Amino acid sequence: MPQPELPEPAHAEVDSMLSRKFGREVANYFAGSPLNRLSFLRTDHPFLSAALKHPSTSFLLFNNMSPLAKDPTQLEYVKLEDVKPLIGEDPYSKSEKQIIEEYNSTITIPQLLFLGLDESKISGFEHDIYHGAPYFAIDVTPKGTIKLKAEKLIEIIKSRGLQFVEGRMHMSLPAPQAAIYAQARALLDWNARNPFCAGCGQPTLSINAGTKRTCPPTDMASITEKGAIDSTIVGEPAKDRPDCVTRKGISNLSFPRTDPTVIMAVLSADSERVLLGRQKRWPPLWYSTLAGFVEPAESVEEAVRREVWEESGVKLGRVVIHSTQPWPYPANLMIGAIGQCIPGGEEIHLKHDPELDDAKWVSMAEVKEALEVGTSGLGEDAGPDYKEGGLRLPPRTAIANRLLTAVTGGFLEEHSHAPKM
Amino acid sequence: MPQPELPEPAHAEVDSMLSRKFGREVANYFAGSPLNRLSFLRTDHPFLSAALKHPSTSFLLFNNMSPLAKDPTQLEYVKLEDVKPLIGEDPYSKSEKQIIEEYNSTITIPQLLFLGLDESKISGFEHDIYHGAPYFAIDVTPKGTIKLKAEKLIEIIKSRGLQFVEGRMHMSLPAPQAAIYAQARALLDWNARNPFCAGCGQPTLSINAGTKRTCPPTDMASITEKGAIDSTIVGEPAKDRPDCVTRKGISNLSFPRTDPTVIMAVLSADSERVLLGRQKRWPPLWYSTLAGFVEPAESVEEAVRREVWEESGVKLGRVVIHSTQPWPYPANLMIGAIGQCIPGGEEIHLKHDPELDDAKWVSMAEVKEALEVGTSGLGEDAGPDYKEGGLRLPPRTAIANRLLTAVTGGFLEEHSHAPKM
Repeated sequence: MPQPELPEPAHAEVDSMLSRKFGREVANYFAGSPLNRLSFLRTDHPFLSAALKHPSTSFLLFNNMSPLAKDPTQLEYVKLEDVKPLIGEDPYSKSEKQIIEEYNSTITIPQLLFLGLDESKISGFEHDIYHGAPYFAIDVTPKGTIKLKAEKLIEIIKSRGLQFVEGRMHMSLPAPQAAIYAQARALLDWNARNPFCAGCGQPTLSINAGTKRTCPPTDMASITEKGAIDSTIVGEPAKDRPDCVTRKGISNLSFPRTDPTVIMAVLSADSERVLLGRQKRWPPLWYSTLAGFVEPAESVEEAVRREVWEESGVKLGRVVIHSTQPWPYPANLMIGAIGQCIPGGEEIHLKHDPELDDAKWVSMAEVKEALEVGTSGLGEDAGPDYKEGGLRLPPRTAIANRLLTAVTGGFLEEHSHAPKM
Repeated sequence: MPQPELPEPAHAEVDSMLSRKFGREVANYFAGSPLNRLSFLRTDHPFLSAALKHPSTSFLLFNNMSPLAKDPTQLEYVKLEDVKPLIGEDPYSKSEKQIIEEYNSTITIPQLLFLGLDESKISGFEHDIYHGAPYFAIDVTPKGTIKLKAEKLIEIIKSRGLQFVEGRMHMSLPAPQAAIYAQARALLDWNARNPFCAGCGQPTLSINAGTKRTCPPTDMASITEKGAIDSTIVGEPAKDRPDCVTRKGISNLSFPRTDPTVIMAVLSADSERVLLGRQKRWPPLWYSTLAGFVEPAESVEEAVRREVWEESGVKLGRVVIHSTQPWPYPANLMIGAIGQCIPGGEEIHLKHDPELDDAKWVSMAEVKEALEVGTSGLGEDAGPDYKEGGLRLPPRTAIANRLLTAVTGGFLEEHSHAPKM
């Protein structure tokens, strides 16, 4: 299978002082979106309504978090006419304020998400000074009161020979499509994963074009014995719900969650070897960089040193951040770093946090060779030049690969030259 | 008021290749914790129990997220005997499994948090190969079934002339204390803010020494009409609770949330000016760097370019990450970056996202002078050399100050030399 392309770094060609001093920016897979998110227009329902109805608009559908696609290398978008039976004529005809006032916890509203405008499409939609082809995503997973409509929609879509592709097919998408997929998946997953308010336990409502969940102060449904919920009695006024702290001021509970993680290529004190680790569930010979979640109240640099020590016993000094990668499974921000051992800090000890099956020091030459002949997706075959028994490493679309490529080649050299005059 | 010290970067003195090529690591305020978190021992109740009871152990108390302190420059810790009336003889005498099995949603368990061991304290606690003085934090906010006990404890503490200091006093703490405070505050706040499961709406239970919340499968309390909760009937078996998706495999909902944010010093294409912005609620003449939340599925570099364009209209090319700062209000990870305009991208337009009161380009010389004479906490007076009408900037404890200091001086020079031989 051909290696999927990586995104072009934005404006990488610009000969700025930062580019001269730090070299070309590294753009990782799932970044490099062609869309302008126009985040400040997400409460503007006249804008959203007009964008939804424009002929240039595309809808990306997800069923159980699997995207609609032609095949594993190409997403498939549908048109408004296709999704009207599920979402109705115009979900943005009422203001956000009205929708909150009319909230009824017994009615399932299909999850719709505004992704942004592709400004490269000249013949697209125009609004004020903004233009481009609009993109939306919809979660068509059959559930609640939209179960039958969603099942019908999925049936029609499948009858056209299209499919909702499961697994990690998206690692084969062209870079701009992978970024659109990642944005849609991360936000639809966050909405589906958080139907209740963590502050008060009551059901919540999606607003801000799919990028916020609010805990409405009233409900048109009536709460009955054992927490079961009745359908609305027509004409009844909305009932007040118990107080919730998220209604007083701004709460992070209302906004999407992104979990920062660290992933790091680790050099020995003499810079001649690289630390690699393997997880218990990986196939034999498979190794990668170490990684872990950033904890509350630690810097990225501290998280890198903590994780490396906890997982391998190795003690790091200087840590440098290399590049970052959004990772939509479900909502990580991978912060890639390069760390170097303090002198004598190389001893491996796997018994602090027994998470790894193994960790070992590998020569630069061996890593370099594996990057050339031994990379692929987990469990897939390596290329034809791979020699049996050789080290296996992650593919180019993984930031681990980019970090290892950096320490065995480009990155350190790029950063060691004096600025061009 | 004297400027509080900044933390020393860990192992900054090590003359590694990364240090030679990238210079000294920047350590920001709230980072630089002296504690080893030993995250892998948080489920080990015999370890936690022994640590809790050791004579070298310190407890940091919070009331409504305000920490116990002698004065604004010094936290105050208490001993186990002081807190026993609230937390009991040994909250870790039972295993985590037992505690989950005995879960009763009508009983308030005081929120206890293991912070780590201060390994610099030689005479501390020893466990296996680990040693140091243990630190715990406790939320003593009066609430639920512990209201009276907590009020009594607070009364006794206050009678000793101690206080729970509100506001941002902690910006005056010595760096290691600030890091301990930040860790405790971030995690206690997360527990207090998330009493319910966002997946199913049921109340949750703190486990893993305060670093995880689980949605127990059973409850010793009985659920009655209208969702009100009765006290346990002695001898009754625990009742099954409705299914929850967080009980199937690992869910991020069970773990603390940290919100990645970007904050960036922005240079003009010719590197001669810096972009500054001011928020509407700030005092006159106050400016800082621009900042904003990272959105799902964007890289840090993309978030920097998006936020700068949305808030100021300015168009960035190359972005370089500088350093990071944990920010415990309530749970941010500030990722500091330096960005540079594309040629001609300097035009300011405040009408995309009208969040800022003003944004403007300021000469390097003016920023440099303000960093010398015009910094302080928000609303505080500047130093004696400040000239009326001059630019005001944030203090050294803010990463914004460190970023501006970097672009007007050290950082770019540090990174422009060839490596030492």
